[in-house]
Amino acid sequence: MSQKIDAYVQSNEARFLDELKEFLRIPSISTLPEHNTDTQRAAEFAATKLAAAGLENVEIIQTERHPLVYADWLHAAGKPTVLCYGHFDVQPPDPLDLWETPPFEPTERNGNLYARGSADDKGQMYSHIKAFEALRDVHGTLPVNIKVLLEGEEEVGGLSVAAYVAQNPQKLHADVALVSDTEMYEPGMPTLNVGLRGLLYMEIEAQGPARDLHSGLYGGAAPNAVFGLVELLSKAKDADGHLQIPGIYDTVEPPSADEKASWAQLPFNEAEYLASEVGSTSLTGEPGYSVFERTWARPTFEVHGIAGGFTGSGAKTVIPAKAVAKVSIRLVPRQDPAAIEAAVRKFVVDNTPKGIRFEVRVLSSGPGPMVNTDHPAIRVAAKAFSDVFGKPTVFTRSGGSIPIVGDFASHLGIPTILMGFGLPDDGLHSPNEKYNIRNYFDGIRTLAHFFEEYGAAS
Amino acid sequence: MSQKIDAYVQSNEARFLDELKEFLRIPSISTLPEHNTDTQRAAEFAATKLAAAGLENVEIIQTERHPLVYADWLHAAGKPTVLCYGHFDVQPPDPLDLWETPPFEPTERNGNLYARGSADDKGQMYSHIKAFEALRDVHGTLPVNIKVLLEGEEEVGGLSVAAYVAQNPQKLHADVALVSDTEMYEPGMPTLNVGLRGLLYMEIEAQGPARDLHSGLYGGAAPNAVFGLVELLSKAKDADGHLQIPGIYDTVEPPSADEKASWAQLPFNEAEYLASEVGSTSLTGEPGYSVFERTWARPTFEVHGIAGGFTGSGAKTVIPAKAVAKVSIRLVPRQDPAAIEAAVRKFVVDNTPKGIRFEVRVLSSGPGPMVNTDHPAIRVAAKAFSDVFGKPTVFTRSGGSIPIVGDFASHLGIPTILMGFGLPDDGLHSPNEKYNIRNYFDGIRTLAHFFEEYGAAS
Repeated sequence: MSQKIDAYVQSNEARFLDELKEFLRIPSISTLPEHNTDTQRAAEFAATKLAAAGLENVEIIQTERHPLVYADWLHAAGKPTVLCYGHFDVQPPDPLDLWETPPFEPTERNGNLYARGSADDKGQMYSHIKAFEALRDVHGTLPVNIKVLLEGEEEVGGLSVAAYVAQNPQKLHADVALVSDTEMYEPGMPTLNVGLRGLLYMEIEAQGPARDLHSGLYGGAAPNAVFGLVELLSKAKDADGHLQIPGIYDTVEPPSADEKASWAQLPFNEAEYLASEVGSTSLTGEPGYSVFERTWARPTFEVHGIAGGFTGSGAKTVIPAKAVAKVSIRLVPRQDPAAIEAAVRKFVVDNTPKGIRFEVRVLSSGPGPMVNTDHPAIRVAAKAFSDVFGKPTVFTRSGGSIPIVGDFASHLGIPTILMGFGLPDDGLHSPNEKYNIRNYFDGIRTLAHFFEEYGAAS
Repeated sequence: MSQKIDAYVQSNEARFLDELKEFLRIPSISTLPEHNTDTQRAAEFAATKLAAAGLENVEIIQTERHPLVYADWLHAAGKPTVLCYGHFDVQPPDPLDLWETPPFEPTERNGNLYARGSADDKGQMYSHIKAFEALRDVHGTLPVNIKVLLEGEEEVGGLSVAAYVAQNPQKLHADVALVSDTEMYEPGMPTLNVGLRGLLYMEIEAQGPARDLHSGLYGGAAPNAVFGLVELLSKAKDADGHLQIPGIYDTVEPPSADEKASWAQLPFNEAEYLASEVGSTSLTGEPGYSVFERTWARPTFEVHGIAGGFTGSGAKTVIPAKAVAKVSIRLVPRQDPAAIEAAVRKFVVDNTPKGIRFEVRVLSSGPGPMVNTDHPAIRVAAKAFSDVFGKPTVFTRSGGSIPIVGDFASHLGIPTILMGFGLPDDGLHSPNEKYNIRNYFDGIRTLAHFFEEYGAAS
């Protein structure tokens, strides 16, 4: 581990933090069209900083929706090539009233930096750029070849980057991909994620009567779109969280005995998890499965949002004509998104109440990849992570979805190192999202160290 | 039937319509606080027109929410007193984009006047005022004593008028109440409603996790507030519309054999009702009960609106912390609102999913009264209605709620004549609400004729 890198990072901490704050002030909310220019600005910010760190061939690539950013540095002859990916778009900040400080005014508090996107993913992806800068400044060169691909649609399905990867396998050719968009198992514990869940995200719209009807005059004879939707959704899983959609578990494989054994060793306090992370009266989910299995290795059905009828203040006695829900199924490795979509569509047809018509619209769809732990780069990554944090690296899975990992596997034929510096309580997608400031700096050190070691080992 | 009244109404039709349009232009939406001054303006409009029609002691009575209007004319010595009730508030007009012409710009089309509140209830209640005017102008006096009580909270539960009736039985003492806020069974068919459904309107709020959570990281272990609410609501009634809340049918009585026989005689085309009124793929409701029984004599459970989680455009993968639904139960005669509320609260407790907390808030509550058809005023009303429209008057029920009828019964001890001139396709509470212009004028004639006959018979 290079002490020069450590010294460089330490002496530049204040500037690194200021630059990240500037990045976080850009409200690059990819799902809201009124923020499209902000997402473009975030791309320009990243491109400028890549060039400043010495990367070459910096491009902002326009797409049908949000731009991509590409850059490379390919002068490490004979050394491997790492494709570094990250995303500069963020989730919407609502509900706004639950934020203690404004989501786009980064605020330091208790050793953390609070802002939308601080952990997911601006803070983590910006660590890559600062690692390049540190290596260039200290060594005058980079120890491996680097390609960088950043996107602005990760939170809305990532269609543009998926298409770009599929269409540019030569340009993006690399030995391994590196993504920092995951979390450490607990503070101070180096963690590499080797399994992810995929995602099938849908809108289901219900139409009942042709127009809203007076519930006094028609109640008892007219179908209610909200209730029709409620009836359908309630049948998708039982009270124990076991999915009731026929065929949904057909290809689900249990984790290996080795994985189960290692998960059993991970420190986990269910009462604390409930109290400090979930904050409800009890956990839910399938009996007979551990929390790790339920969140890492089992498919789930969630309703993300629902709207229909009168929801203003006071009372309005309508039978609503329309209702819509946003739902998703998290897919585990070996579940085929197309087969699961077909199963959902059949389930909807088979469970359509009298008088209701449903429309199902797929907003995004991608499988849940498993990562090969035997790749030399992953072994080097585990060692570099251990070296900086002073503890053995653990291998876990994540219940979340990083669709790009599947794209890199299928179109480039490479594994992805998921080396993330987030923490379990970072509040991704929630109010008061934060990123630990120490982890931001240590992440930069770990990444630089990984590049050094991976170059040296080759 | 006085030909002089008919002539007076006929020669004033244009002005009567213009005045009603002026009334309808006031957006007196009682549930929206930003329209409070409009609701006050509607009260002032009605008060001014009552005074112009010769009513005395006109008062605008301020309450905690929206004002009441009182007026009287008590110079028909030895004659009975009729308490005329109506409401000048209206439902919100949303969804606005479904209106063909603006909701608060009354527009004549196909013999109808389109505007929010045209039928419910401004058009009907204004008929009373024009009937007083016609009688005063033609006869120089009124044939009975009149008390008028108007409210601006009917669409939000009517708490102020209920309190006022309870507190002022002497002031409001009368022989019979008269309300025009119902519909004729079909165009041209004089109809008196003798039974109503009551209403228990509630908000049910679900809290799951303490904050919105990332569905990838926590899906499978954390409770989902929207799904918890969906689970609860889905258990409230089965696929046939039969309520599943224990005890809910305990005091429900079937309609009498006479009622069922008379309902069987009413012209009713279920296919046309489905196509032109409901507009869905099929009707719903309890097997073995006619549409009349289902909508007039059976309790119902409806979800009027639901909201929770992310409902903007695109995809957000949260497990929502909160969700809320507006629901109601329509109560039939002899169901006690307090007992039903207790049954609902127990049902909610007994069906609370793991990890979810529910809060039930009652927004309004009132029983479903039956009206005594043997009262002499009701017989006179039936005859007056028949005389003007040239057909026998039918006795029906309505599935809607008019809480004031129960208040008049319990606090004043008087029955209420429900003499309404709306039509089944008026679109109450829906976009494109309308009132038939011919019915507006014939309603004025019928009301004046009723007052004449009731005075003459006493």
